Amino acid sequence: MARPTPLSGFPEWLPDGRVVEQHVLDTLRRTFELHGFAGIETRAVEPLDQLLRKGETSKEVYVLRRLQEEGDAPGDRAEKQLGLHFDLTVPFARYVLENAGRLAFPFKRYQIQKVWRGERPQDGRFREFVQADIDVVGAGELPYHYEVELPLVMAAALGALRDVGVPEVRILVNNRKVAEGFYRGLGLDDVEGVLRQVDKLDKIGPDAVAELLQAEQDATPEQAKACLELAAISGTDTTVVDRVRALAASYDAVTELLETGLGELAALIEAAARRAPGVVVADLKIARGLDYYTGSVYETVLVGHEQLGSICSGGRYDTLASDGKNTYPGVGLSIGVSRLVSRLLSAGLVGATRGVPTAVLVAVTDEAHRDRSDAVAAALRARGVPADVAPTAAKFGKQIKVADRRGIPFVWFPAQPGEDGTEPDALAGEVKDIRSGEQVDADAASWEPPAEDLFPRVVPGAAG
Amino acid sequence: MARPTPLSGFPEWLPDGRVVEQHVLDTLRRTFELHGFAGIETRAVEPLDQLLRKGETSKEVYVLRRLQEEGDAPGDRAEKQLGLHFDLTVPFARYVLENAGRLAFPFKRYQIQKVWRGERPQDGRFREFVQADIDVVGAGELPYHYEVELPLVMAAALGALRDVGVPEVRILVNNRKVAEGFYRGLGLDDVEGVLRQVDKLDKIGPDAVAELLQAEQDATPEQAKACLELAAISGTDTTVVDRVRALAASYDAVTELLETGLGELAALIEAAARRAPGVVVADLKIARGLDYYTGSVYETVLVGHEQLGSICSGGRYDTLASDGKNTYPGVGLSIGVSRLVSRLLSAGLVGATRGVPTAVLVAVTDEAHRDRSDAVAAALRARGVPADVAPTAAKFGKQIKVADRRGIPFVWFPAQPGEDGTEPDALAGEVKDIRSGEQVDADAASWEPPAEDLFPRVVPGAAG
Repeated sequence: MARPTPLSGFPEWLPDGRVVEQHVLDTLRRTFELHGFAGIETRAVEPLDQLLRKGETSKEVYVLRRLQEEGDAPGDRAEKQLGLHFDLTVPFARYVLENAGRLAFPFKRYQIQKVWRGERPQDGRFREFVQADIDVVGAGELPYHYEVELPLVMAAALGALRDVGVPEVRILVNNRKVAEGFYRGLGLDDVEGVLRQVDKLDKIGPDAVAELLQAEQDATPEQAKACLELAAISGTDTTVVDRVRALAASYDAVTELLETGLGELAALIEAAARRAPGVVVADLKIARGLDYYTGSVYETVLVGHEQLGSICSGGRYDTLASDGKNTYPGVGLSIGVSRLVSRLLSAGLVGATRGVPTAVLVAVTDEAHRDRSDAVAAALRARGVPADVAPTAAKFGKQIKVADRRGIPFVWFPAQPGEDGTEPDALAGEVKDIRSGEQVDADAASWEPPAEDLFPRVVPGAAG
Repeated sequence: MARPTPLSGFPEWLPDGRVVEQHVLDTLRRTFELHGFAGIETRAVEPLDQLLRKGETSKEVYVLRRLQEEGDAPGDRAEKQLGLHFDLTVPFARYVLENAGRLAFPFKRYQIQKVWRGERPQDGRFREFVQADIDVVGAGELPYHYEVELPLVMAAALGALRDVGVPEVRILVNNRKVAEGFYRGLGLDDVEGVLRQVDKLDKIGPDAVAELLQAEQDATPEQAKACLELAAISGTDTTVVDRVRALAASYDAVTELLETGLGELAALIEAAARRAPGVVVADLKIARGLDYYTGSVYETVLVGHEQLGSICSGGRYDTLASDGKNTYPGVGLSIGVSRLVSRLLSAGLVGATRGVPTAVLVAVTDEAHRDRSDAVAAALRARGVPADVAPTAAKFGKQIKVADRRGIPFVWFPAQPGEDGTEPDALAGEVKDIRSGEQVDADAASWEPPAEDLFPRVVPGAAG
């Protein structure tokens, strides 16, 4: 096998990069659990017909084929075609329907898994990446207050990563009812069409969007102008709501739906200002192309890295799932973990103090006495200190280099037999901090490294 | 969407089952890290030609196809076909070659990921499951002592699960050099062929194996008898080695390779008897069909559940990977986590005390004062107590039922305003243990649940 090369779109990390990713995943998990979200995992595959129900992403599905299916009995081949899931929302909706009788609603779950998109290899996009989703789903109904809570949980999760060097985030929020109420008040009834055009603002600019609105949604120049004026409104306090209301009044476009949406948006902004000051920004241009959102919508940017796009998005959907008899509304957000970690690593924003868990390398005096070193390592591990034993009984200088190359901070030297041949205490020895060179007597039954050296840490800047 | 049904072979757990699986995964990870193994993850796909290099499992590969690849430019289609990995060894070998210049050898890594096998749906086998692998890989050489260490790490990992109800394990070990040296000493040179037949012992019994050895490996009845006598030897101390040697001598089949293998096997048994008494058993019938093992081989059974087969297997391979210039020998074991967890759950051996992380449900007096309950929950979470707020301001009895249905042990009632309208201390309230009914005054800035109630615990028996 010649030396293999990476597959474009399938990111992998070296061990120190994985330490960073694992820290991000552990932090997200802990935050989600503190907020009462239960962890679940779903299988990686769904029947292809279910994956293709939502129009937009259907072209990016990987379809599975069993290499040996030619030899199958006809009955086996009749099994539905399977594809890899491209998000965690479709599988979660299926899981809810499949297990509805055994879940307690409202059901709060988090789910951290890989997803796949069958992109063209040339496009340089991720074809495999990790997402971390939280959703709350109700049976029949779901109170509005979850639309306030969910983005704040994500703010807490991302905020918990600030001290390792993850930049500040801004959660940009809007409400579908505001947009729809405003457009309908203007007389524009193809709401999805208008949203689709407004969603292009960042890419093509306001003039091009105005032209598209007139060409494709039959908007008058005045209607197009009003849509752009709405999209230009943003802010962190409820004066945003007053500005939208004034704009709508100036176009005689105030509707009941608009007022409902403004009430919800105000509640979200107020709660966010109280519970996570400065994090949540109302931004009336946030459209989120997906047609299933029906209330709040969210996008999240890393401050200073806005060109990366949204790293955490979501919203409210009145029909997350439905089996014809029961409808399950939901609200959720999804963090693109791979995109975030990839940026953290490539921009050198975050690094790991080492790529191995090992805090102490126990040196081996000679192979005949490897068991002494094993016993020291076992004693350290029994007290929660990650320890490894040197691969060979090389000269001590070489064993220290083994530790140094891996970033292991401490090397342990087992005590030697006395000159008269008396066996030393099995757990006695000396331990050297190879960074400072300091070496002290120690007992493996009690010695501990400083807390900050116990496990690899993730720290601002590329420490590796 | 009609109510979906499970896909055969793709296991999923309800939230309380996932608590059990997560505990198993966390325990394995912690044990591996204490022993100095670095965590990595590899992508789910490998080029199909690499997956098909090993004969045995090639028929079980899922091949990927992009739904839209018909529209690709010819250059895109030229990309190698991709398949889902069916184990973690092939991807790890590729990762080692790809990153050899950036890894420190011997490289110890653990890897916990899903793998897929394109089995016939009717066969009832898992088609998606989680594996947890540990391997040590050297550059050019790898000392024997890792063949002793690796099964003991797995013994420690599985042993750490004993207190939640996982049965005792036996790690059955053998050494390829013993088998090969013995067979060659007998005059049987198709060593792989003989191993393949001996591997069928548990399934078809000794008589059928003896017939196959004669029919397919051209063994004489005496040679076949000798193979079966070797396979019948087992034990936990080094007398096993003496019995093998005596057997070989009786057939005049002692070889240098046999002696090397017996020396290694003795070292493993001795170390295991010292470091994990009773766990490791030498069992000369362990063959492990895979042709790449060259030294120690391992299988693991749950005591009392032997019919489940091996839940943790592996061995030594002199060529884990090779790029033509450099060869990377390795030794590793792989736990079938899904198979283990599936058995633990279905046999009711292990259960979770609850399916949600929440320790405290904060009741809501009325929707207008939901922010008071949010503040209490935030104060509890800030101190690491998983807390949730009731979904609606229903009657308290109903809110208690919300907690009860989820197994949440405590319900918090925020303090009410005084009769004169004075606002209470925001974090004051009463907390009720809904199991005992006991209710006490508490302050959310300091109150803590008992440690055993803080997070869901995994306990022997189906506690759920």
